[in-house]
Amino acid sequence: MTLGLPEVLEQIGRQAAAASRVLAQATTAQKNEALAAIARRIERDAASILAANEADVQAGAANGLSSAMLDRARLDSKRIQMIATSVRDVVDLPDPVGSVISEWSRPNGLKISKKRVPIGVIGIIYESRPNVTTDAASLCLKTGNAVILRGGSEAIRSNMALAEAVSGGCTEAGLPEAAVQLVPSTDRAAVTLMAQLDRYIHLIIPRGGRALIEAVTSSARMPVIKHYDGICALYVDSAADLRMAEQIVINAKCQRPSACNSIETMLVHESVARQFLPHCAAALWERGVEIRGDPLTRQILGAKVVPATAQDWRTEYLDLILAVRVVQSLEQAVDHIDANGSHHSDSIVTEDHEAAQAFLNQIDSAAVFWNASPRFNDGGEFGFGAEIGISTDRLHARGPMGLEELTSYKYLVEGTGQVRG
Amino acid sequence: MTLGLPEVLEQIGRQAAAASRVLAQATTAQKNEALAAIARRIERDAASILAANEADVQAGAANGLSSAMLDRARLDSKRIQMIATSVRDVVDLPDPVGSVISEWSRPNGLKISKKRVPIGVIGIIYESRPNVTTDAASLCLKTGNAVILRGGSEAIRSNMALAEAVSGGCTEAGLPEAAVQLVPSTDRAAVTLMAQLDRYIHLIIPRGGRALIEAVTSSARMPVIKHYDGICALYVDSAADLRMAEQIVINAKCQRPSACNSIETMLVHESVARQFLPHCAAALWERGVEIRGDPLTRQILGAKVVPATAQDWRTEYLDLILAVRVVQSLEQAVDHIDANGSHHSDSIVTEDHEAAQAFLNQIDSAAVFWNASPRFNDGGEFGFGAEIGISTDRLHARGPMGLEELTSYKYLVEGTGQVRG
Repeated sequence: MTLGLPEVLEQIGRQAAAASRVLAQATTAQKNEALAAIARRIERDAASILAANEADVQAGAANGLSSAMLDRARLDSKRIQMIATSVRDVVDLPDPVGSVISEWSRPNGLKISKKRVPIGVIGIIYESRPNVTTDAASLCLKTGNAVILRGGSEAIRSNMALAEAVSGGCTEAGLPEAAVQLVPSTDRAAVTLMAQLDRYIHLIIPRGGRALIEAVTSSARMPVIKHYDGICALYVDSAADLRMAEQIVINAKCQRPSACNSIETMLVHESVARQFLPHCAAALWERGVEIRGDPLTRQILGAKVVPATAQDWRTEYLDLILAVRVVQSLEQAVDHIDANGSHHSDSIVTEDHEAAQAFLNQIDSAAVFWNASPRFNDGGEFGFGAEIGISTDRLHARGPMGLEELTSYKYLVEGTGQVRG
Repeated sequence: MTLGLPEVLEQIGRQAAAASRVLAQATTAQKNEALAAIARRIERDAASILAANEADVQAGAANGLSSAMLDRARLDSKRIQMIATSVRDVVDLPDPVGSVISEWSRPNGLKISKKRVPIGVIGIIYESRPNVTTDAASLCLKTGNAVILRGGSEAIRSNMALAEAVSGGCTEAGLPEAAVQLVPSTDRAAVTLMAQLDRYIHLIIPRGGRALIEAVTSSARMPVIKHYDGICALYVDSAADLRMAEQIVINAKCQRPSACNSIETMLVHESVARQFLPHCAAALWERGVEIRGDPLTRQILGAKVVPATAQDWRTEYLDLILAVRVVQSLEQAVDHIDANGSHHSDSIVTEDHEAAQAFLNQIDSAAVFWNASPRFNDGGEFGFGAEIGISTDRLHARGPMGLEELTSYKYLVEGTGQVRG
């Protein structure tokens, strides 16, 4: 008898909970051994992983997937090697589990320590890219969390082949096979069923577009950490080093337009606009950037600038398009960002310390930059070694989510017989 | 024209968001000034608050509320004074906002600091006790959060009178009146509407019974921090100091049976059961405790012990009842707690350091105690000064939630023109 989807998910949840209890007690050496074994297996099984991927790509093409989607799902031997290397890189990262966050004594002699522990069971729901299977699994494994993965249908065979290498690596190191499980169904109902499994799953992280995140958020009974859009702005202050400002704008817009920490908006103080904008615009145009501007920007730069609508200030282009507005003051820049931005990554360029402090204090974003490109809002660039995403939430994790953000904590209290009076 | 409930809540949400931006920039002195003004107003307006409360109690009695509920809703001049004192106590607590959690530099010269900021807008949904209005408001205010309160119908007039004192205190100190708002409706639909206001409210904390928490969790689109039951256990190890064990059991069961950190279960190692149980049971019986036991416990203590069912191991009695089981080993105690407990507060009594470490490591609870009463799992006892509750969640806050747990953080990054390569 084949189990129905609800029973399959119930079983996966129960197995994950049991595995998480073993993982919580695993040593760093054991977890690293599993990671090394996983990397070896990915390399060893490259041919069968590539065959599974080829079947995915052919099925996707037959189903009329866009070439962009097919490209994201496609693996080759170089990408396989990169996947194995990413897993191996996690071996070298410090294990946060067991570290003491703080400790203190109470007047009654109780000694309290706050110690990092795994979260427990983490659900990851993702789209397209098969490398998420191993990236997410290796970060969860390193932090002692069991993980339930649910990838997209366009990569189901690739994901299953990779998940097999991961489970095999776990058992090779004496860890439970169910430490990492992939939901073996592309049925959309599986997402809703996972979101209801709050008796087993402690946290769900959706990695994908807005529609996926909203679907998970509206049905989830457990905490969800969201990685929403970045509508990021750069403000060129009246006291900016204009050469620096231009270099940062070009980097923040052009280096990787599809990244969430690239800017979509530039705000320029009116006192420097006439001096700054023509040279900066020429450099942007040279790189193929379309500029959409407010009336003052158009007055300075001319008709080549597309008129910006209210919608432009609130759009994550993820493309070579930049909305530009001339503002009268730092306060107006702050108000603009507060009303239109997504509280992700924003930056000020100025030599005026006071203006910088006002901006850093008042801008309510996960990361606020002064004289630096907001492209640095990234786990790797922050020195976290790896990241599972950039949280746009304010609870538990905000900004880059590294290994520490994949842990919880517990209090250990040692006494000598104290009772409460 | 009167606004409908959805429009009222939309307006409350928008006002809270605007107030939160002002509060985030408020100085500690300003927030303390508001708290002092609130305490003064509560004392000054005691007569009208008591009159409102009297109307609540009379309406509740007319509606057939239980005397326990009426008692929880009832205020007198002593309770009013305690409420004012509680608000004033928050003045002396350190303000976590603005403190630097960590800071470091990157090889490229970027200086990164992780700084505490308010969460933003917090929704509190609670039942019965009017003092939650001022307790929650003062902790949120101190941490720079705007708060939307939704109390129960049995205390609506008292809550409104107290909320008026709070808003008045805020404006007196130059802070927005909407820093603290009370939903002026006892319609149950208001709870669901609040839970959908994720564009304004960043966190909801339900304070009440399981039914309330589940209703909020299933409809909420924003993070919810839950304060569920405590099914707490005390394990008396083979190497326990038996006199200490008895004192801790009596404290943990009898000092305040209705508290979530009181024990419901005692597990006793078989090697000490015959020596320990008779004396301990006599002391418990003397204090009116009913003992429900497994067969071995009954064999030792006799027929006065009620046979324990499987349900007894999973029940939060909140009463003078204790389930007792004799176990063969520490492992069996850990398995029992893992299978039946609620991961809240558990305790081991032993002189054996190795056994203690095994228990502390393996028990997956918010607070694990060694030779101390689990009744110490409390914000005040931990030295947090105050608490908004004891979280049974694993994300953002676990265990006592003090002022730090009412904050988020942001990253501030200072550069000298760095761009990403």
